[in-house]
Amino acid sequence: MDVSQERLRADIEANASYGAVESADGRGRTVLTGTEANRRARDRFVDRLEDAGLDVEVDAVGNVVGMWTPASADPNAAPVAAGSHLDSVPEGGIFDGPLGVYAALEAVRALQADGFDPARPIAVVCFTEEEGTRFGGGLLGSSVATGARDADDALALTDGEGTSLEDALESIGYCGEGVLDAAAWDAFLELHIEQDTRLEERAVPVGIVTTITGIVHATAEIAGEADHAGTTAMGDRTDALTAASEFILDLERAGRERASAGEDTAVATVGKAEVAPNATNVVPGAVELGVDIRDADAGTMAALLERASRSLERIAADRDVETSFTRELDVDPAPMTERCQRALEAGADAAGVDARSLHSGAAHDAMRVSRVTDAGMLFAPSRDGLSHTPREWTDWDDCATATRVLTEALARLSKE
Amino acid sequence: MDVSQERLRADIEANASYGAVESADGRGRTVLTGTEANRRARDRFVDRLEDAGLDVEVDAVGNVVGMWTPASADPNAAPVAAGSHLDSVPEGGIFDGPLGVYAALEAVRALQADGFDPARPIAVVCFTEEEGTRFGGGLLGSSVATGARDADDALALTDGEGTSLEDALESIGYCGEGVLDAAAWDAFLELHIEQDTRLEERAVPVGIVTTITGIVHATAEIAGEADHAGTTAMGDRTDALTAASEFILDLERAGRERASAGEDTAVATVGKAEVAPNATNVVPGAVELGVDIRDADAGTMAALLERASRSLERIAADRDVETSFTRELDVDPAPMTERCQRALEAGADAAGVDARSLHSGAAHDAMRVSRVTDAGMLFAPSRDGLSHTPREWTDWDDCATATRVLTEALARLSKE
Repeated sequence: MDVSQERLRADIEANASYGAVESADGRGRTVLTGTEANRRARDRFVDRLEDAGLDVEVDAVGNVVGMWTPASADPNAAPVAAGSHLDSVPEGGIFDGPLGVYAALEAVRALQADGFDPARPIAVVCFTEEEGTRFGGGLLGSSVATGARDADDALALTDGEGTSLEDALESIGYCGEGVLDAAAWDAFLELHIEQDTRLEERAVPVGIVTTITGIVHATAEIAGEADHAGTTAMGDRTDALTAASEFILDLERAGRERASAGEDTAVATVGKAEVAPNATNVVPGAVELGVDIRDADAGTMAALLERASRSLERIAADRDVETSFTRELDVDPAPMTERCQRALEAGADAAGVDARSLHSGAAHDAMRVSRVTDAGMLFAPSRDGLSHTPREWTDWDDCATATRVLTEALARLSKE
Repeated sequence: MDVSQERLRADIEANASYGAVESADGRGRTVLTGTEANRRARDRFVDRLEDAGLDVEVDAVGNVVGMWTPASADPNAAPVAAGSHLDSVPEGGIFDGPLGVYAALEAVRALQADGFDPARPIAVVCFTEEEGTRFGGGLLGSSVATGARDADDALALTDGEGTSLEDALESIGYCGEGVLDAAAWDAFLELHIEQDTRLEERAVPVGIVTTITGIVHATAEIAGEADHAGTTAMGDRTDALTAASEFILDLERAGRERASAGEDTAVATVGKAEVAPNATNVVPGAVELGVDIRDADAGTMAALLERASRSLERIAADRDVETSFTRELDVDPAPMTERCQRALEAGADAAGVDARSLHSGAAHDAMRVSRVTDAGMLFAPSRDGLSHTPREWTDWDDCATATRVLTEALARLSKE
């Protein structure tokens, strides 16, 4: 198939000019949902969809779909879809999201140029607020499109200044009609940068995702007693920070044990700590920790969560602190559909591209879509595994190579 | 001596009305240096000094001294001084500072009422910015009065909004002339609340301080590498927070070992922790810790500091993080003068009050003064050891009892 690296690069670079961030480290962008930068990125995307002759629809939460239904395709057949997202984290990179969106469009353009006749319509998709930076939660557009979240509930979400998603989308002209129904798709493929170094280290240009790991975000609270650091003897303290330190090390140990047991997809992290009152001369009275636990296997996640709870109970008993453990986010691992993995493998073969199977430690829109229809993901290498930073980088050759695999896989699925 | 509990209580309660903080927990106040609340507290104090016939002087950094030089006193003899401070931490208590200031004035009034004839003048002192809340550093007025800090340097200190101490003092009319010289005093006594539970637990109404512990405030910095918590395998991490947790527990262990070795004045605390980027889904890249180490013995402090440095070096080697340890405050232990301790013991005997010797884990203006002349301190009990909170409380009986001991001790020293 005639994938044009030049055209793909021009799209991603033009998209990178919206919300562009000057950085000595690389090319960054800040494109939060419903901002002027987001409007310009969306407008350009819609123009390119229309240039390719696709029928564009925008749903109530701003999800954008461009549908290609050539004469060969049964307009009533369930479409095959591909895409990702255009929003970014603050000072994020230029590939995380846009690569998947514009690769899907480039795949359609390549199929068109090749005179390919799909049996099903092919949809190019951009989901709203994948990063969750402005309105919280993450995977927002795909959550609504898969019925995991109610559209009205999503539209009522507010940013830090009280602006609702609905008002933000209306202000940029992207609060459309109805709700995109991902369950009506025959299949969905998402190309994304890897955000890890497994492909780079092995010099493999494409990764085919087997499973997106499950994820739990929890808050561990530890309450001791704030005391004067000078006048409170060591034996009279109930120090919340030393208690929290035991928990942090215990959780690291649990994650490492799982990893050394060969379950190298398991990770356990305390990424956040808030200490109160947080003054050098006061024994800490309370600590709140943000805990992140992920694995491709639901049983391992349950074991890590059980370990975390037991650890807190032991520390509470040993140190006379009070502890709690509250889950704010609890998502099961999402295996990618066998049929989609096979289509991607066949696509890699057809394109003459070396590919390897791997799991995804990060969440993606495909995670949500996999709950309602067949879904698959492929990864392009990330330099040094970096993302969410202007240092994020994927070589243009690798972008094009992964797009060729995506194109071949879409061609296969659209004929099935 | 005719100490009036009623008069003392009226003074402290009137003083508590300036910057008063409503609290269900007790009576609080916020009196930062150079604020309107501070002006009113100072004005009232000056009025009361003048009511008692004292000559009032205000120095360049706002230290206030009321001098009583009756006919019996040699006006050229070195005066005996007593006092404390009137500023507070935000939402602090009503006794921390004001008790020592108004007890010193009440002592003079009681001596006057008793027709006591001192051989030396007696000075009642209020030091500026003891808490260091607005302009930083702490013990500011006593540092200047003892030559530890230059007055111009102190006046140039700025608060969080860029206002200098000089401008703040001028705005309330307390930027005076010259610099108070504590070295010219024969001796200095400070009455303060204990901020600990040793007196309360033993039902002893007065503590005589043997030593004010030395204090080091240091910043321990630990730099690892921020990474995606989902995609970075346990073995590929350089987690600054787990490294910091090892240090926090190591320092606690060191403090506990000293305490169990009978050196129960030693304390080692990590009171503050700042994590970056501090997001649940990011492996922490850097942690900054606020470390507080105190002991009455300089050798023990040195050993604890050495242990902290060695611990960081070991963690740097084990975990491939970079560490540093920077001292921001480094004050040697300050033994109180034997002569002053004996005067306080004799004063307690004369007043028929049970007293015990103890160390002070908190810093006080007497710490600075002890470097340049004879100094002593006495403590009144703090309910539950609490201070720096509206829950701070000392019974009025205990305030008066300690003031009686102070009065007797001043009487003795002023005859020597």
